[in-house]
Amino acid sequence: MALKFDLTHLMADAVGPQHGLTDEDLDTLVGKTKRIHADLQTRRAAGELGFYDLPSDSEGAAAIRAMATEVRDRCDTFVVLGIGGSALGVIAVQTALGHAFHNLLSPERRGAPRLFVPDNPDPELTSDLLEVIDPKATVFNVVSKSGSTAETMAHYLVIRDLLRRTVGEAKLRDHLVFTTDPEKGILRKIADEESIPTLPVPPSVGGRFCVLSAVGLFPAAVMGYDIDAMLEGAGAMERRCATTNLWDNPAYLHSGAHMLLQRERGKHIAVMMPYASALRDLADWFRQLWAESLGKRHDVEGNVVEVGQTPVKALGATDQHSQVQLYVEGPNDKVHTLMAVENWRHQCPIPPDHTDEESLAYLGGSDLGKLLSAEQVATEIALTNNQRPNCKLVFPQIDEAHIGEFFMMMEIATAHAGGLLRINAFDQPGVEEGKIATYALMDRAGFAEKRGTLKKILAEEARRSI
Amino acid sequence: MALKFDLTHLMADAVGPQHGLTDEDLDTLVGKTKRIHADLQTRRAAGELGFYDLPSDSEGAAAIRAMATEVRDRCDTFVVLGIGGSALGVIAVQTALGHAFHNLLSPERRGAPRLFVPDNPDPELTSDLLEVIDPKATVFNVVSKSGSTAETMAHYLVIRDLLRRTVGEAKLRDHLVFTTDPEKGILRKIADEESIPTLPVPPSVGGRFCVLSAVGLFPAAVMGYDIDAMLEGAGAMERRCATTNLWDNPAYLHSGAHMLLQRERGKHIAVMMPYASALRDLADWFRQLWAESLGKRHDVEGNVVEVGQTPVKALGATDQHSQVQLYVEGPNDKVHTLMAVENWRHQCPIPPDHTDEESLAYLGGSDLGKLLSAEQVATEIALTNNQRPNCKLVFPQIDEAHIGEFFMMMEIATAHAGGLLRINAFDQPGVEEGKIATYALMDRAGFAEKRGTLKKILAEEARRSI
Repeated sequence: MALKFDLTHLMADAVGPQHGLTDEDLDTLVGKTKRIHADLQTRRAAGELGFYDLPSDSEGAAAIRAMATEVRDRCDTFVVLGIGGSALGVIAVQTALGHAFHNLLSPERRGAPRLFVPDNPDPELTSDLLEVIDPKATVFNVVSKSGSTAETMAHYLVIRDLLRRTVGEAKLRDHLVFTTDPEKGILRKIADEESIPTLPVPPSVGGRFCVLSAVGLFPAAVMGYDIDAMLEGAGAMERRCATTNLWDNPAYLHSGAHMLLQRERGKHIAVMMPYASALRDLADWFRQLWAESLGKRHDVEGNVVEVGQTPVKALGATDQHSQVQLYVEGPNDKVHTLMAVENWRHQCPIPPDHTDEESLAYLGGSDLGKLLSAEQVATEIALTNNQRPNCKLVFPQIDEAHIGEFFMMMEIATAHAGGLLRINAFDQPGVEEGKIATYALMDRAGFAEKRGTLKKILAEEARRSI
Repeated sequence: MALKFDLTHLMADAVGPQHGLTDEDLDTLVGKTKRIHADLQTRRAAGELGFYDLPSDSEGAAAIRAMATEVRDRCDTFVVLGIGGSALGVIAVQTALGHAFHNLLSPERRGAPRLFVPDNPDPELTSDLLEVIDPKATVFNVVSKSGSTAETMAHYLVIRDLLRRTVGEAKLRDHLVFTTDPEKGILRKIADEESIPTLPVPPSVGGRFCVLSAVGLFPAAVMGYDIDAMLEGAGAMERRCATTNLWDNPAYLHSGAHMLLQRERGKHIAVMMPYASALRDLADWFRQLWAESLGKRHDVEGNVVEVGQTPVKALGATDQHSQVQLYVEGPNDKVHTLMAVENWRHQCPIPPDHTDEESLAYLGGSDLGKLLSAEQVATEIALTNNQRPNCKLVFPQIDEAHIGEFFMMMEIATAHAGGLLRINAFDQPGVEEGKIATYALMDRAGFAEKRGTLKKILAEEARRSI
């Protein structure tokens, strides 16, 4: 059974014409979608959009599996040093497929290394991490396509020094794996000079589209997950989305509806709300994909457009006690994607007790899974009755194949949404300014002039604070 | 040193008149603020708004400390069963004050029980939790003001059965502490009948305003944090915010600016972005407070208004690689609260290496804390240069007192914002519909008619899915 996309409650039938879509609305996208599809396929054929073809890279997968098998046998702990697209996919896969308390399990029970992904250059977080790992039993996967990401390289320098002091210079290479560009960049150069093992990030795959490359697959394989099944799921979704017919294409329907609802119905916020703790970090992964791909000042012709839907991550049922009041009664400016699970991997029966108490009696004899699923349906009903458009992604169960389907569906949806917005979904010009300011404030060579300007501004600013 | 609130970059001087505020704009709130303040103080005096007075409840704090000391001596693991306001504060305090990997430390090193807060009725999460705890060495804190929260009571029934099977009926009470209404509700009744230890949630303190009651303080005290210092910080902030002068009141300035920016400048989204992993769950706590308090359909006179700013939690520097592209270049519909830390609890030096490589050389000899702080300033500059209004909360350091100040500041800001919006910030009528639908779907007695209606709707809906 494949992922199911249910758009019943996005439609005007369900939530009214002011907030929902008609078939005719979606039909206006049919022609555009054919053109966008053709354009994306042309760019794919030209080797620009490598993410489409990761599922069929069986040679790459074999290399990842081989290195993962070798690594997991010789370490107790596996640490991924990466940030953004180099961390979010790894975390999402582990949260979805791993034991909720994996790092607390005994080595025998977990059957895989402990996993840490310290994706912030935070001195307190990193100090605490160094206290709980033994470098001699740890492999560090340094992940940066460019090899110059400041946060990741700072962590790399900290770890390199630690390894030198513990395992010694000669054994550094046994504790490092670099995932980076196959030819360029400083990590590639260091690896070549010091014979450090590496895995490639295909140059045609952007950072936020790389979860199905070695960036996401190598840690997944080290943790013992079936990366072939994940790639099969992704490949099946890619084929399912190869149709130019909007109505048969779940990715295009999702993105098309989202873009229409933003432009025509003022839904500027896209809430993704899985009803399963294990799926919560898929929403975080999606958050980067949607925000960084679609949040753009200029369209492809250079006009100022300032577009982009703001993605919001929520968790059911937890956020019913936090966000749902706003979603149901506040401004009708959101489109919601609920995520439901049909078959749970574990049952958790609720034993009857206090059966004379009406507010407890109905729970006894049921199961937590039944309660959580009922709450998902209840939120769907409450949103719909209050004319809040919502759709649903149904996972038959949580496993490698369905996670792979999800990744590919959302990547294709994002590419399509970029086409509808007529923006470049594959760059991120807006983060340059902050990077340059960081270099200047950190006294990087070549940024002296910028540093002077910044210091002047900061000094002259009339600070208003209490 | 107290928390500092810096609003330099909210002002028109910094981000231009289309997106920033002038002194005159804020001055329009001076009179309203005096009236709102007087109204809030009247309600406080009438015993409706108990959160203001929690810092001076020294008797309550003494009872909490006493029970915490007794509990922590006899358990290896402490589990809080609660959701929403009964969980978010506990998690926020632990993330802020605890070791980042507390549960992985040895009992000697951690000097306190392991802490788990399974705030979702998820069968997979709960099954995994039951695998890593030993009920004989665990105390469960069941937290529900009403005693009828479905998710919490479901967990309670699961745990009660587990305890009965492991420690036995006679010893149930040694493994349970209820935090609930001092007089009413099913948990109170069970506690009275079975002599289960309890702590009170003052009836005048709403669920999302209760972090400084036993709900938040008891787990904090069990974990060994200085709850007196937290209450002192909160009390100092309460006194600081006792002035009706908007310009001297950090809470009113924060909420006043946010409400003006939403109404007059279209900033419908409030991003809270701490630059410290330890502060990230304070933003999650704030997310409930802001959304559930302000997201309202009706004003106090019953007019349909559908107001409320959507809170978004982000994390610096991590989300520079995920959300900042959107924040800097996308729709200018956000106001950002950055959170900065002046003094880190740990240093983490970046040792120099590869000093001939320009993209690494500038990092060597610095420190992760310096890098993270530079990135915070860089994001502030990038947002400001792109006319995106942003303010900053500066923590001199992360400790009990400053966390207490933060909680009280945001609670008072929320009460004030409710006054400016002319809505009831202390109810949550919009969550009732979902609760009733859940009861109906779970076959709770008394909901048969509703169940019939729902089943009919669900059966008759023309589902649109692929």
